[in-house]
Amino acid sequence: VGASKLLWGLARVMDPSELTIIVNTGDDIRLHGLHISPDLDIVTYTLAGAVNAETGWGLAGDTFYALEVLSRYGGPAWFNLGDRDLATHIHRTAMLASGSTLSETADSIRRGWGVAAKILPMSDDFVPTIIVTDRGEMHFQEYLVQHRAEPEVRDIHFEGIENARPAPGLIEALEAADGIIFCPSNPLISLGPIIAVAGVREKLWDLRERVVAISPLVEGRSLKGPSDRMLAQCGCEATSLGVAHLYSDIAGTLVIDPADERLRTAIEALGVKVAVEPSVMRGDEDKLRLARAVLAVLAAAASAASSGGAAVRTATGTIRGGARGKD
Amino acid sequence: VGASKLLWGLARVMDPSELTIIVNTGDDIRLHGLHISPDLDIVTYTLAGAVNAETGWGLAGDTFYALEVLSRYGGPAWFNLGDRDLATHIHRTAMLASGSTLSETADSIRRGWGVAAKILPMSDDFVPTIIVTDRGEMHFQEYLVQHRAEPEVRDIHFEGIENARPAPGLIEALEAADGIIFCPSNPLISLGPIIAVAGVREKLWDLRERVVAISPLVEGRSLKGPSDRMLAQCGCEATSLGVAHLYSDIAGTLVIDPADERLRTAIEALGVKVAVEPSVMRGDEDKLRLARAVLAVLAAAASAASSGGAAVRTATGTIRGGARGKD
Repeated sequence: VGASKLLWGLARVMDPSELTIIVNTGDDIRLHGLHISPDLDIVTYTLAGAVNAETGWGLAGDTFYALEVLSRYGGPAWFNLGDRDLATHIHRTAMLASGSTLSETADSIRRGWGVAAKILPMSDDFVPTIIVTDRGEMHFQEYLVQHRAEPEVRDIHFEGIENARPAPGLIEALEAADGIIFCPSNPLISLGPIIAVAGVREKLWDLRERVVAISPLVEGRSLKGPSDRMLAQCGCEATSLGVAHLYSDIAGTLVIDPADERLRTAIEALGVKVAVEPSVMRGDEDKLRLARAVLAVLAAAASAASSGGAAVRTATGTIRGGARGKD
Repeated sequence: VGASKLLWGLARVMDPSELTIIVNTGDDIRLHGLHISPDLDIVTYTLAGAVNAETGWGLAGDTFYALEVLSRYGGPAWFNLGDRDLATHIHRTAMLASGSTLSETADSIRRGWGVAAKILPMSDDFVPTIIVTDRGEMHFQEYLVQHRAEPEVRDIHFEGIENARPAPGLIEALEAADGIIFCPSNPLISLGPIIAVAGVREKLWDLRERVVAISPLVEGRSLKGPSDRMLAQCGCEATSLGVAHLYSDIAGTLVIDPADERLRTAIEALGVKVAVEPSVMRGDEDKLRLARAVLAVLAAAASAASSGGAAVRTATGTIRGGARGKD
């Protein structure tokens, strides 16, 4: 949700057709025989101005009549699917069944909503995020929605990640980018799956100086969702410094909120530059302001990188579940 | 729609668990990747008291929000699918995708609605009704809904009927039945596909004396739908006498409306007994009355059959597209 807010801002302060959005599909799940891609849809609906602003997911003003009838047939009712939203899943599932790739469905859907930004899934392969908890293993959506993120997280893995290929054009988009932004999202289960796709981490190493990450934590708390708790349960420090640790080998700059300014020195000691910007997005003005600020930080980073002024970096950061030092 | 009205009445004037309903699936169509079985659903929704009484199909009070979004994605919008109704198609499609038969989906759906009568598709195989018209060949739903039954019908065929097997239990249900009712439906494209399934016509020959058909025509007009025009375009007489011709080898008795009483002698000359009952169903009282009347006719026919009093029959009737004389 934080990511989609920033993306909404970015698509308004820059030419949206110059924006390529790479989206986590580890949250994807099959329910009622339908292929549901929650993150792709949140991003698409948000950029279309059609998202339910109250929840941050689903379509504004959607109704839930079909789900009531699906319950009659014994279908799972714990995952809310609106009637309008269902059309997206029906369309995606039909395209996949007739041989299209997930990338093609994502493109068809964003065009259906008149979204100018390119939207790429991280992979066309199905790589569900599995959460190992004190109550057993479960799909990420079961953990988050069905169990309300209550179970204690012991481990996270991305099923099938070994064989998942990056979506067509993904690596090329990274290479061609003037700058790369890690949106304010959970580093483990939102950015983590993307980074774990074959070739992405290696490419980010090369492009590190033009990567700007925005910390999803302010004063050790996530603004929405269980990121803070999940980080702590996975043995990471649940602060912007912990985020810097996770990203230090792949992001040259970390944007932190003024409330976290005291962490600046410790973050810089990891070889990560720090930019301080208010990163809580309450209204549209906040989104536009942060988007402008991030573009300015990116421009500065790109300029420093091309002038050879990149900071010496120490590759100590790891993303749980697949991190390797470069050297 | 006429059939579902009578079935609603039958399920109320007899023990509905004693009722087995064999449903045409030639109208089935795949749209938006979903398997849609319009006739199965009309029957199920009607017996559940949930049908949209105004249209005769779909669910009462249904909304059409998902279809709007499907249109964004370029999906066909000519076939109206309500949000609640879509849940049925989603459930059916998911069951089929996971290996269930159409019979199993029909049973799951009628149970979901608490319908006590057994509901059997004519076949688990996909046998779409193709209408050959002056504007080319088209699926029956395209003819009826998309083209509003305007094209001139030149021929009708049931694609794949040669290999379609009757649904499990169908032949046994016919054999075990105290009586068999042909509901007031289009003989060519509603009853026709069922009768054309392997073994059904032959079984009906044997059971002819306990078969009571209700003419869907009154004074040469169908009460709803294009039956009258379609019969004429296919070279059949569009009257209750024409219906008697089509059914004469498989139905011992034809119920006609008092308005058609003048056809009695001609129908009886085909070896078909005639029962005269008001067969226009405007309200619930009409449905209950006709249901009671049909059961009485059936009881009389069964009694006559078991006492050896069956009329000598002349097997001259044909159903276009697959009729054969028995002898």
